[in-house]
Amino acid sequence: MNIILAETGEVDAGRLTLTDHRAKHVVKVLRAEIGDCVRVGLIDGEMGLGTILAIKKKYPFSVEMELDLRDSPRAQPFLDLILALPRPIMLRRILSQVTALGVGTIHLINANRVEKSFWEAGILEQEEYHVHLLHGLEQAVDTRLPSIQIHPEFKPFMEDLFPTIAENYQHLLLAHPTGGQRLGDVIDSRNGRITLAVGPEGGWVDYEVKKFQEQGFCNCSIGERILKVDTAVIALHARISALREVVREVK
Amino acid sequence: MNIILAETGEVDAGRLTLTDHRAKHVVKVLRAEIGDCVRVGLIDGEMGLGTILAIKKKYPFSVEMELDLRDSPRAQPFLDLILALPRPIMLRRILSQVTALGVGTIHLINANRVEKSFWEAGILEQEEYHVHLLHGLEQAVDTRLPSIQIHPEFKPFMEDLFPTIAENYQHLLLAHPTGGQRLGDVIDSRNGRITLAVGPEGGWVDYEVKKFQEQGFCNCSIGERILKVDTAVIALHARISALREVVREVK
Repeated sequence: MNIILAETGEVDAGRLTLTDHRAKHVVKVLRAEIGDCVRVGLIDGEMGLGTILAIKKKYPFSVEMELDLRDSPRAQPFLDLILALPRPIMLRRILSQVTALGVGTIHLINANRVEKSFWEAGILEQEEYHVHLLHGLEQAVDTRLPSIQIHPEFKPFMEDLFPTIAENYQHLLLAHPTGGQRLGDVIDSRNGRITLAVGPEGGWVDYEVKKFQEQGFCNCSIGERILKVDTAVIALHARISALREVVREVK
Repeated sequence: MNIILAETGEVDAGRLTLTDHRAKHVVKVLRAEIGDCVRVGLIDGEMGLGTILAIKKKYPFSVEMELDLRDSPRAQPFLDLILALPRPIMLRRILSQVTALGVGTIHLINANRVEKSFWEAGILEQEEYHVHLLHGLEQAVDTRLPSIQIHPEFKPFMEDLFPTIAENYQHLLLAHPTGGQRLGDVIDSRNGRITLAVGPEGGWVDYEVKKFQEQGFCNCSIGERILKVDTAVIALHARISALREVVREVK
């Protein structure tokens, strides 16, 4: 936990009182004392410091602090994800890892090779996935909560919803091992938003690839090595980030 | 398992007989029949196809195949890792993920912020970590097993061992959040080998940074977001790979 996150509604007259795992973290991990400053942020809001006014170091822990939140939230991430619903245990890790890397919206969609049982997983409940998103923000020192959109049907998402948001993006990238362009040949600007679509274990089927292409997606590959979805998502995010940073020098 | 891996010693007159989890995989997942071809490779050797000559589809499973291994092993990965020993559960995942991405040698070293108990973990036994390396190769369709080198003392590794191998590398990169250069300003060639050193949770201490710098390591950062070690290793590997692929166009 590299930043303590709170909801705006928890703040009262510039003061924040914690009595849950965050209080325990301040006591046990940060070992803070009265007068110390700790990094605090409001979810979807400003970041800054909290000066500790009172602290109870034995169970039940509590910490009261005065907030001074002068730092703007981080910039809106440039990347949104479309993810064929992964196995629940993998989804948990992906949610916190991509939140740490920075992501705007994550669309979880159906695909031919998504196992039906994955749609019954508890992680699709808001109160469950929220925890993993918070872990990612707390890790990366960010306050901007990604939006999770769940689409249990492929076709309505691709045909009805996606066309209404497609124009928000400069690049529509489909991770697909065959017939693709290299990412380095596609990323040609430091600006504009990107949607990256990553398939299930076993990949997209031809029909799905066709539907993405009809919406203007470009097949991209990161080489011959076949990666698990959790590795691929991070590797693609990182590669796209690196390429955007050097593109000024390329052009 | 995108390739079935075998030791050279398992092959007899061009034939391979499997009776373990690999036989079960051929029967249950690949659902192969006599005459079908499956992807096979020899550890640290060639890759190719195995034609199924005989198959027993009920427990105990067995599969006999004739091998035709005409494909050279993949190229030697350009990247070696120096990793402050991570928490065992994280190390398992890192080993298979970086093996899937491609890595030559992984040096596991001590650092000030490595918990002492991590050095007692079973994953440091060859028979335990070998399994996770194989998972990575089986995932990525590779046969080249990374070398694992374990160095429980920081100073002898940095002062005595590393200088003897330093000249093998074109770039020595130290992942460190502060005072670093951007990776894009450092990676200036598609050729040559790279060593990347990634610290423990909480980072390298000043003494360690100084020791790396004395050996010619260059501090590199991937931005302000603080990442967990498992996310950081993959993201750094991917960023370096992407930058090497575009560097021809930059120069």
